[in-house]
Order: sequence, then structure tokens, then C-alpha cells
Amino acid sequence: MKKLINSPDTVIADALRGIEAAHPEVRVDHSNRVIFRRQPKADGKVALISGGGSGHEPLHGGFVGEGMLDAACVGEIFTSPTPDQMLAATVEANVGGGVLHIVKNYTGDVMNFEMGAELAAAEGIDVRTVVIEDDVAVQDSLYTAGRRGVAGTALLEKIVGAAAEEGRSLDEVAQLAQAVADNVRSMGMALTSCATPAAGKPTFDLPEDEMEIGIGIHGEPGRHREKFTDAKDIARQLVEPILADLDYADSDVVLLVNGMGGTPLIELYVMFAEVKALLDAAGVRVARSLVGNYVTSLEMAGCSVTLLRADAEMLRLYDAPVATPGLTWGA
Amino acid sequence: MKKLINSPDTVIADALRGIEAAHPEVRVDHSNRVIFRRQPKADGKVALISGGGSGHEPLHGGFVGEGMLDAACVGEIFTSPTPDQMLAATVEANVGGGVLHIVKNYTGDVMNFEMGAELAAAEGIDVRTVVIEDDVAVQDSLYTAGRRGVAGTALLEKIVGAAAEEGRSLDEVAQLAQAVADNVRSMGMALTSCATPAAGKPTFDLPEDEMEIGIGIHGEPGRHREKFTDAKDIARQLVEPILADLDYADSDVVLLVNGMGGTPLIELYVMFAEVKALLDAAGVRVARSLVGNYVTSLEMAGCSVTLLRADAEMLRLYDAPVATPGLTWGA
Repeated sequence: MKKLINSPDTVIADALRGIEAAHPEVRVDHSNRVIFRRQPKADGKVALISGGGSGHEPLHGGFVGEGMLDAACVGEIFTSPTPDQMLAATVEANVGGGVLHIVKNYTGDVMNFEMGAELAAAEGIDVRTVVIEDDVAVQDSLYTAGRRGVAGTALLEKIVGAAAEEGRSLDEVAQLAQAVADNVRSMGMALTSCATPAAGKPTFDLPEDEMEIGIGIHGEPGRHREKFTDAKDIARQLVEPILADLDYADSDVVLLVNGMGGTPLIELYVMFAEVKALLDAAGVRVARSLVGNYVTSLEMAGCSVTLLRADAEMLRLYDAPVATPGLTWGA
Repeated sequence: MKKLINSPDTVIADALRGIEAAHPEVRVDHSNRVIFRRQPKADGKVALISGGGSGHEPLHGGFVGEGMLDAACVGEIFTSPTPDQMLAATVEANVGGGVLHIVKNYTGDVMNFEMGAELAAAEGIDVRTVVIEDDVAVQDSLYTAGRRGVAGTALLEKIVGAAAEEGRSLDEVAQLAQAVADNVRSMGMALTSCATPAAGKPTFDLPEDEMEIGIGIHGEPGRHREKFTDAKDIARQLVEPILADLDYADSDVVLLVNGMGGTPLIELYVMFAEVKALLDAAGVRVARSLVGNYVTSLEMAGCSVTLLRADAEMLRLYDAPVATPGLTWGA
């Protein structure tokens, strides 16, 4: 499979050069593979750090900046960064307010962030961790014990980032992060596989007339495969399990229709229309909407739906200014 | 080819429902298929209208909003909107300051915008037109006499939109638009074809080991095909014809590395790194950078490079606040 790369071995290093060249607001530590904000933060601000395997861009590096993350640890494609990276990010980003690690629930990420946090604690840094596990599709899977962490991560990083920016304490920030994690659910599907540069061929085979419902963001198996139907039916298959998992009645909701990377935006809008119609019919109040490619799986075609049950405070923080390479809106 | 749609016949109508549901800042005239700003503008502001075939999202509908367009006319996939749509958009968006039509150079778009402008003029509206033809790849092609209008359009709409927002006159806005059009050049390439929903199969065949250099945004033939090489060589093949066409020495440049829709963001960053290195070596001063999917060709894999020779005023307007579904940054 053709890719716009020089070599599978240099994809991450090359992309990091590109990110640094394109975005003066971030700084890249190339030896540790950590993306930092360029501007130092105020003393005492809680530092937010996330990270994970590459191939999900703009997550996480694209969310480093004013109003979101302070640093992102960059792993190889679909491979967790190492504890040393987490340690380097934590030590550098800490400005005395303590550090929150935002971790998607994959075994490698959880283990390596945990070890990184222990190493940082040994250096006297106060580290908390929130693990996000928003995917309702499956319990346990290829790389995960429990539910996987998927596109809800982007909403969590936005809202918690705004709170940290306001100067809240580590306790408060960690508590808010857990509240967001507790109230967000996602479900995804794929029309095609993706191919890692190293493998050079699709991760799995999906026949031309089939789709996979409940796919993971590395192409891990979902709930089932079936014949391709249409946007309306797919929307139903993504929304129903989410609504069955959490009670969204009588609360405001942030709705994210997220592209997996290879689906044109026009199709995401078709999906958004169907998802919104279902939520309207179910009496779910969509207070904020986001449509686009935020948590991707290389060039996989497909989408996911994320619903966050948001209180007024979360909505206010969601609306706060943000300026990062991958998510930006004004004051 | 599987797509997240209900039917090829309803893609545009369904997507327009989605755009309206997702973005409260725009309003959709569903019968005329025009996307407007929801908030009426100040009397006397010059109205900017663009449009064209669908399948290039976020262009143009995603660029309607504060600081960019006042309206976008939405055609079928890769098909020009009709003069009646341009007329409806022009009459509705005009608030006494006159209207600028921003037209990508494709025969259908040029003809239909021209007819729409004549109909509007007959109703007493002062309409000017700027035709953008930034693609250096080929002279004349499948749908175009002269050069094609491609990703430079996004930069033009941003800069000229900011000028209109400041309350400049139609003469001034039209003059600036022409200056941007005169100073912007692009060149694109593809790794794969795209497939329109109606056809359901790839527009053209591109063997697994080949790429097309100089591709158009509807899959029109480019300059040539050759064996796939690597990002560094592709960057050279896109940058050299642009630098040969316009003198970028001693001026600031806005650099856009644009995805065609199906290429993962991480690959666009690899391309950005290579393009930037070439420009550095050529002494071209990159003052602003933009990376992402702004002018797409459905799910085509590939990218384009756009270079705008920008004076200080263009850079100032480029930096001005913008709030649209597809391009947003803060004050």
C-alpha cells in the first residue's frame, strides 16, 4: 500500500519534523519524542500529559497547546510510548502544580504510563492518572482488558485542558477528568481496514460488501461483521448501544461524529444528520456538536459516534478558547 | 465502493441536513442548496459568495462564517451549481455593499457564475468576480480552459474574507482578491483515485505501484504517471514547478500542505517536513503554515502544495479571526 512517507522506519521522526516546522506553537523533543507547548506555562499550573501510539492524528500531539495538553508522548504507529518518554514529559512539563496523565485504556499505554508515573513520583512530582474507556463496543479485546479508550479522549482533553488553564488544583482537575471519563461513551465502525507503514498491507480483510460494527481504533475486532447497509442503519447501530449503556435523558450532550481518517467529510455530515435525527427522536438534547477527523486510525474508512453527558460546567469549559494544531477555536 | 451514505441520490440533501444540524452558525436554504451565515451581516458589508461541485469539503460550505464567506452554492458531486443558485445566494447575501463571486476555474463554474452574476446585475446588484486558477500542473484539461482552480482557493477565501469583514469597499475587496489569485500557485498528486457515489467505482485506475503527478481535484489527468517513489521525491516534484512559475524570493510565503481526503494526517506532516526543507534550501521564507484537508477530492489519497506570495497586509488578514465549520481560529 502506497503511503506518503520516505520509509516505514522514519515515519515518526519525519512527521515530528513536519509538526515542528508547521506549528511554531509547539516544540518537539526529538530524542524523547515528546511534543511540548513552546510557551512555558505559569508556575503552579497543573500540567496535562497524554500520549499513545501514532496513527491517530491529530490525537494527541495535535492537541498540545493553549487550553488543552501540555505535552504528548509519541509512540511508534499503534504502539505505546515507553515509560522513559512519560517520565521526560512529566519532568519537563511540571511547573509545580502537579501532573495529570490522560491514558487511553490499552494494556501497553496503561502499563507504561503507570511506570512513568512511578518514576516521576520518585522524583517528587505529584502525578494523577485518568484512564479513559469510552468504547461500549466490546469488553476486553486484542490490546485491552476492559473497554477501549477511543474518541471520547478528544472531548476529555478539551474540557480538562480548559480547567487546568484556569488554574485549578490537581485534585480538581483529576476529579473533573474522572467525571468526564465516567460520562462519555463511544462506538465506531469501519468500511475498510487501515495499513501500518511497517506491514504495508491491510491489517485485516473486509470484503467489498461488508462492514465491521464496533471496530477498535487499531483495527481490533469489533462486535460483528455484516453486509453493508446505509448511513441510517449504521447510525442506529452506533447510537443504540451508547444509549443503552448510559442514561442521557434530561441532560445536555456533546455529540462528536468522528472520522476514522479515510472517510470524506461529506459522508461524516450524512452520518451526523442520521445520528442527530435518532437523538432527537430519543429526546436526547444535543448542546454542542463536533464533526471531523479527531481520533483516527490511519486511512481507515469509517466513523465513530461519541456522546458526552455534560453538566453546565463541562459545557462552559468545552466552549473555552483553544489553540492547538488540531483543534482551535476563538475566545 | 462502500460509502457512509443512504443513497447516491440523496448524498447532497443528507449532508446539508448534517451541516445545518452540526453548525448553528450557518443556515441552509435546502431548496436552493445554498449555505448562508445565520447571523445577518452589517449593512453595506461586501458579501463573498463561492461555490462549486460537492466532494471538496470543507470547501466551500465549511468556509461560510465570520471572517470568510457569506454564502456557498452547493452543486452535485463534482458538478457545478446552477446560475439560479448563484442568483439566490447573491440576492440573499447582498446587504447593499455589493457581492464578490469567488470562482474556481472550471468551465461549468465559470459559465454558471457568469450567468448568475448577469441575472443579479439585472436586479441592480453590483457583482464582481475573481477567477482562481492556481494549479501549475497543466494548461487546459478535462473540465477547464486554462489552469484549474484548486487549494489556493482556501487561502484566497480566508484573506479576502477578513478584508470584507473589516468593511472595505467592493473595489478594494475585488482588487485584493485578484492580487491573491495572481500570487498563489499549487500543484497536487494522487496515490489513489476517488469514487463518486453515483459511479460507485474509482474514477480512474492507478496501479498499486504508481502515482499521478499534477492530478486535478476531480481526478482529471495530471502531468504524468510514474512509479511511486517517496515523500522527499514527491515534495520535489510538487515544489519545483511552483517555484519555476513564480518568483518567491524576497517575499513572505503562506504554505499550505493540503490533503486530498484519504491521506492520514501523519503523512501530510511527513510531506510538510520535506516541502519545508526544500523551501528552506531555496531561500523561500515560510511565514505561515497550514496542514490538513481543506480542498479535497472525496477519499482520494494524495496531497497538494500551495504557495502564496503574501505582502504584510495579506499576512495580517490571514491572521485575522475566523469562525467557520471548516476553518477556525481565535482573535
